[in-house]
This record gives sequence, C-alpha cells and structure tokens, in this order.
Amino acid sequence: MKIWFYNAQILQNCKIISGDVLVEDEKIVYVGKNPPVFDADRKIDVKNNILMSGFVNTHSHIPSTIMRGYADDMPLDLWLDKIIPIERKMTENDIYWSTMLGVMEYVRAGITCVEENYSFISPIMNALKKAGMRARISLGYPNVNQTKKVNLEQQFKEIKKNNFKAVCFAHSVYGTSQKQFDELIVFAGKNNLSVSTHLSETLKEVGDCTVKYDKTPVEYLEYLGFLDRPCTIYHAVHTDKDDLKILADYNVNVVTCPSSNLKLASGIAPIYAMQTAGINIAIGTDGAYSNNSYDMFKEMFLTATLNKTTLYNAEILKAKEILKMSTINGAKSLGFDNLGDIKEGYFADLILIDIDKPHHFPHNNLVSNLVYSAKSSDVYLTMINGKIVYENDIFNFDEKVEKIYSECKKIKSKIL
Amino acid sequence: MKIWFYNAQILQNCKIISGDVLVEDEKIVYVGKNPPVFDADRKIDVKNNILMSGFVNTHSHIPSTIMRGYADDMPLDLWLDKIIPIERKMTENDIYWSTMLGVMEYVRAGITCVEENYSFISPIMNALKKAGMRARISLGYPNVNQTKKVNLEQQFKEIKKNNFKAVCFAHSVYGTSQKQFDELIVFAGKNNLSVSTHLSETLKEVGDCTVKYDKTPVEYLEYLGFLDRPCTIYHAVHTDKDDLKILADYNVNVVTCPSSNLKLASGIAPIYAMQTAGINIAIGTDGAYSNNSYDMFKEMFLTATLNKTTLYNAEILKAKEILKMSTINGAKSLGFDNLGDIKEGYFADLILIDIDKPHHFPHNNLVSNLVYSAKSSDVYLTMINGKIVYENDIFNFDEKVEKIYSECKKIKSKIL
Repeated sequence: MKIWFYNAQILQNCKIISGDVLVEDEKIVYVGKNPPVFDADRKIDVKNNILMSGFVNTHSHIPSTIMRGYADDMPLDLWLDKIIPIERKMTENDIYWSTMLGVMEYVRAGITCVEENYSFISPIMNALKKAGMRARISLGYPNVNQTKKVNLEQQFKEIKKNNFKAVCFAHSVYGTSQKQFDELIVFAGKNNLSVSTHLSETLKEVGDCTVKYDKTPVEYLEYLGFLDRPCTIYHAVHTDKDDLKILADYNVNVVTCPSSNLKLASGIAPIYAMQTAGINIAIGTDGAYSNNSYDMFKEMFLTATLNKTTLYNAEILKAKEILKMSTINGAKSLGFDNLGDIKEGYFADLILIDIDKPHHFPHNNLVSNLVYSAKSSDVYLTMINGKIVYENDIFNFDEKVEKIYSECKKIKSKIL
Repeated sequence: MKIWFYNAQILQNCKIISGDVLVEDEKIVYVGKNPPVFDADRKIDVKNNILMSGFVNTHSHIPSTIMRGYADDMPLDLWLDKIIPIERKMTENDIYWSTMLGVMEYVRAGITCVEENYSFISPIMNALKKAGMRARISLGYPNVNQTKKVNLEQQFKEIKKNNFKAVCFAHSVYGTSQKQFDELIVFAGKNNLSVSTHLSETLKEVGDCTVKYDKTPVEYLEYLGFLDRPCTIYHAVHTDKDDLKILADYNVNVVTCPSSNLKLASGIAPIYAMQTAGINIAIGTDGAYSNNSYDMFKEMFLTATLNKTTLYNAEILKAKEILKMSTINGAKSLGFDNLGDIKEGYFADLILIDIDKPHHFPHNNLVSNLVYSAKSSDVYLTMINGKIVYENDIFNFDEKVEKIYSECKKIKSKIL
C-alpha cells in the first residue's frame, strides 16, 4: 500500500518545509520537493494542512477513561476514595471497552503512540490492537501497595506475543516495596528492558520519602539501582538542582503531565531547569480521571507557558522545543527508533492538522500556531504504521464506534 | 421569529436541568419541562448537546487577531518592538477585516458578548455589527503614553449611535496620565458610565508604581477616585491582601486572562483570594497577539486549575464556579442585565455544546466536562440576540467568509 501526500507543509525537525511525502506500507520512503511520479494507491492533497509526526503520549492510564469527570475538584485522598472502588469493580471486559473509548479520543487528537501504565494488560492490548496503536506496555507493579506477587515472565511473554514494547513499571517509591523494585531491576537487566515509575509528584511524597530514607525520591531510586537501567520517570514536579543533576547523569527521561499536575494541585514541574540540565523531556496526558482529556495540544500550551510564568521569562521553552518534546523526545523516551519525525526510513505515524480555520489565520507562524493556537479537533487525519485509522470524523477500527459507545454506557450504568 | 429548543440539557445557574427553551425575537420567553405546543418558526432537537448561555469575553483587543503568532516567545520589550510598528501601519480597513477574522473565531468558540479595548472604534463596531455581536466598547485612552487629546463626547455619541454599551477606558497607571484619568472620571460621572483599565499585570508595573507614587496600582486608582465609578480591571495578577480589600470594598469587577498572563510571563492571579474577598471575577481572552486564540474553554481550565496548584488545594474553584465566571459574572462585570444565563426574560445569547464526542463520554458530570474536557470546537451553534450567527461550520454574517480570509491575506502580505 502506497499513500502519497502532496502539496504538503511538513513539520520536519520542528521546522516547516514544503514538499511531498510517500508512505509505503509502514514506512516513510520519500520526503522531498520534486518527487518523481509515484505509482500510489491513494493521493492526498495536503493543501491547508500541516503534515507532522503523530504525538507520542508518554504517560497514560487509559482504562480510567470511563471515570472522566467522576471525581473532580477534590483532594487526593477523597479522589482515591472515589476512584479505587470503581477500579476494583472493573472487569476485563470493562477495561477493554473503556480502553476502546480512550483510543477513539487518542486518534481523534492525533496521538499515535502511547505508554500505558495500568494493570489488566490483556484487555488493554486487545483494544489498542483494534486501532493499530503503537504502544509501550508496562509489566510489574502498577498499583499502590500491591501485595500479590506478579509473574513478570508471563507478562513479558504476553506483551511480546502482542508485538508491543515492554517496560518494567513500579508505581512509586511510596507504593512499591524495595523488594519489588529489586525484582523489577533484576528482570529488566536480564531481559534488556527499560524501567519506569511515577516520581516526586507531590510535596507529600518527597517529604515522606525524605523522612523514611533520608533521601529524596530521586536519590532513593539511585540508591536502589533503578537508574542504572534506561529509565523514564513521570511528573518529577518537586525536584531540586541535585535531583536534576542525578537524573541528567543517568540519562533519565522525564515525562511532564502539566494538566494532571494542575488539576490535582500537585505543582508545576521545573521543565526549564530540566532542559538546562540536558534531560530528555517528553509529555504525557496522564489518565482521564485526573486530566480530564487526552489532548497533547493542551499539554503543549501548558508545558510552554507554565515555566515562562514561574520564572518570569517569556523567551524560554519556545514553540519548536515544545513540539520536539511531544514527538521526537517522546519516541526517544519510550525507546522507539525511527519514530517521531518525518524522515525517510521512519515509521509512518503521521497526522494532518487542518489550518484552514479562523483560529489559525493569518498563518504568521505555523510552528507557533501548533503550540499556542491549535486544538486537537484540528486533527483531520491520523495514520499509524502506514494505516489511516482516522479521517474527517470517521474511525477505521476493527471495532464499531456505536458498539464502543453503547458498551461504555452499559459500564457507566453498572459501576458509576 | 420563534425558535424552539427541545430535548435539551440546559445549563441554568451553572447546574444541568432538562427541558425546553423557547426564544422569541431577541429574548428567552420559556424555560421548562412540559411546554405547550409552540407555534415556532424552527424546532431544534438538542439531544446530544448542552444548551447554555454564550460566553462573555470580558477583555479583548480584537484587531490584534491579524498579529496572531507574529511575536511569540519573546520578552515584553521585544514583543512591543514588533507589535507597535504593525499597529501603527494598520488602516481603518485593516482594523475592520482583522476584527471580522476575530469575530469568526469568537462565534465559532461560543463567545457572544465581548468588551473591546482598542483604538479605531468605528471599524471595530462596523465589523462586530456584521455578526450581531453584543459588546461593550471603550472610549478614552487605549494606548500607552497617548498624547493627543481625545473627543470623548464624540466617541460616546458614536458608540450610542451603533447601539453598543460604552465604558471609559484608561490603558494603565503607567501608560495613562493623571490628567487623562481625571478627564475620564469626570466624563464617566457626567454620563453615568463605568470605567475600566489594565491593572497590576506585571511585577514591574507594581514596583514602578510603588516607587513613583508610594502606592500600589490599586491604591493609586483609589486615590484618583477611579474606583468611585462602577469599575472593571483587567489582570490584577500582582495584588496583595490590602489591594483585594480595596477592590472588594469598591465592588470592583476583576477580569482574569490566564493564557495571556502565562504566555507573557506575567504571573498567576490570586483568583481564590479574590473569590474569598467577595470580588466579582470574570474571564477574558485578551488579544490574539498575546494568547494566541479566543477560547474561553482554555481560559476556564486555567482559571480552575492554576490556583488549585499555587495553593496546593484541588477543592477550590470548582467547575460550576468557573462556569459562572465565564457567563453570569461576565455579564455583570460589563453591566448587562438579563444576560449570562438561561432564564425567561433574558436575552437569547445561547450556544449548543456537542457532547456526542469521545472526549465527553461517558457523561459522568456534564458541568465538569464543560470546564475540564470540552473544547471550543464542540460549539455546534451560536445565537446572539435571538439570531443564529453560526451553526455547524456555517457562519451567518453580513459579510462573506471567503472575503474575510482573502482580505486578511492581503493585510498580512502588506504589513506583516
């Protein structure tokens, strides 16, 4: 299958170039200005659109989609009191349909690759596959104070069987035991896997950790040996200069989830300090129960502007740097090669952004528009691995949209 | 002309009720559950939508729309160096078309009423009228260090002739002279008008004002007698407890513009402290050159969450309180009676929000969805003063959309 995008304004390496792009099967095989005549199955006129890499959403809990808006405007303890009983009620079937609902939102918003950190990986993977999503799936200890031993080998086998990438995931320094951390580190080493965890999300977490171990959460991870593996941490809101030095020294990837951090009143992550320290920063939406949508445009606006404000400096974190975080850096943080940009030989995870709308005019600076003016509804087409999974309000899934809605309505009436 | 909305989920007083709404000419004449059969010119099935008041955008500089993305990621002085020469080049014709472009974005995003603070009021009003926008237009001193005397009487006459509401506007304590403030106060008193100004937007402004007058900007306004008139101030980012007491004592309305404040690195306004002090808080987008879009959903998300984070308290500024700010409080701050809610006798400024989209499911809490999940692209229909000005991607203006785009392209190639 060959698809030829012509008349395109292409976001390449976070700059706009004009030209054509040819996709053959799952790869981008041509990017250039004066293409030969290709023998394509389909030609798409990209006039009035920007062609860019799909977004890499580097932290999410997709089954939480069913809980969107269920526990808002409340402190963390009350939020947990409402969320946990629902999570316990959810069957594998509920997880499957809630994931399908989330996947609709992902591809509608131009998210083509994701890291999922949740239990019940089988129904999650089954649903992701129905839309052809690219994903890194976590094995290990996704819940707080999980006591039941997990069969890591079996989980890893299952992830491999489903052709997803795997990561060894510990919930957090407060919710995962040292023994579990050790087990994950050994397993990751043996199988050449990366590791990931929530870290330094709240002041309470940092305070408790410091009291308990006389170490910040970052120092504790270093002490455990967790940072000796290729590592991604989510949030890193409350990290000081010494923490950032450690994270930089170990080449740890940091995922920022600004909407979730704002809405749960966690704080504002020191993104500019991380950038200055040379840390690879990526962006995630977190789950719909805390955000409450999967919208990388919202996250980009926040990542660009929150540190401008806390540091009273409008010059930092420029639009092109933010676009890199949501695409190229995201792919790097999840360990995907040849992903996150529009280059020959890269995987064809592409989106079209419709800029023929009032809020994009008069097209003074398209890179800037993508971060400061665009909305996820501007996504006109989403392609993953060379396959168009969404185009102009039509989803191309191996699952009917009406069925997804009706099953989610049933779940809502059953458990919410 | 009678329009009957049936099967509706209605946002009334920031709560969802179900029922029907009848609009007759410019007013809402019926809201209820079991209506008689109306003899309506049009019946609209509101199933899958929320029917709510249009947004009141209480601070904007709409001719700046043409400068969207033109001066991003730069400090205020460089930003001004880029913006001011463009403003000087703009003719009345440029102002007209740039305003038309902004109006398209307004109604597409459900904004039905606005306060415009800019010079060249004639072309602005001409454009607003083409879409039937409701607006308060400022007369006075909209520019920094304006030296030329203004004919307030003539401006006021012109605003009245065009059937808009008028407000006496001073740019700021640093950009407007005491003599000009005095002139506006006298004129407002004589004509029973409100007053407005930018205030305490940056730390520099507060510092400079304190050095110059030994007063904070709020104290200086009190000293001038500006607060003796019904008054609205924009931003109020850097206001302390004593300032807020003064603002509360004088019943001053505060307009918060969080996107603009974040992007220009101004700071985070103490909205919760204002609310606790009993101040009427409304929300504005500011101009597209600093924001870069007219999107009250984005502003609502930020207004709800920024103070949650700065105060580490997720319980404050609940969704329904934020909806009130963007509608009811906005109407109050601009001095419009019978506006901002869906009640019999109120003006028919209404919007439909399409909730039949993945990012709204599974409809656990529609009030919460409006603030935390909705996007401006969810606006399906916009009615102002009983007239449908936008519906499902079609604008119903006394000006052709294609012409607006083509004229704005001309302006861009001429001056940008």
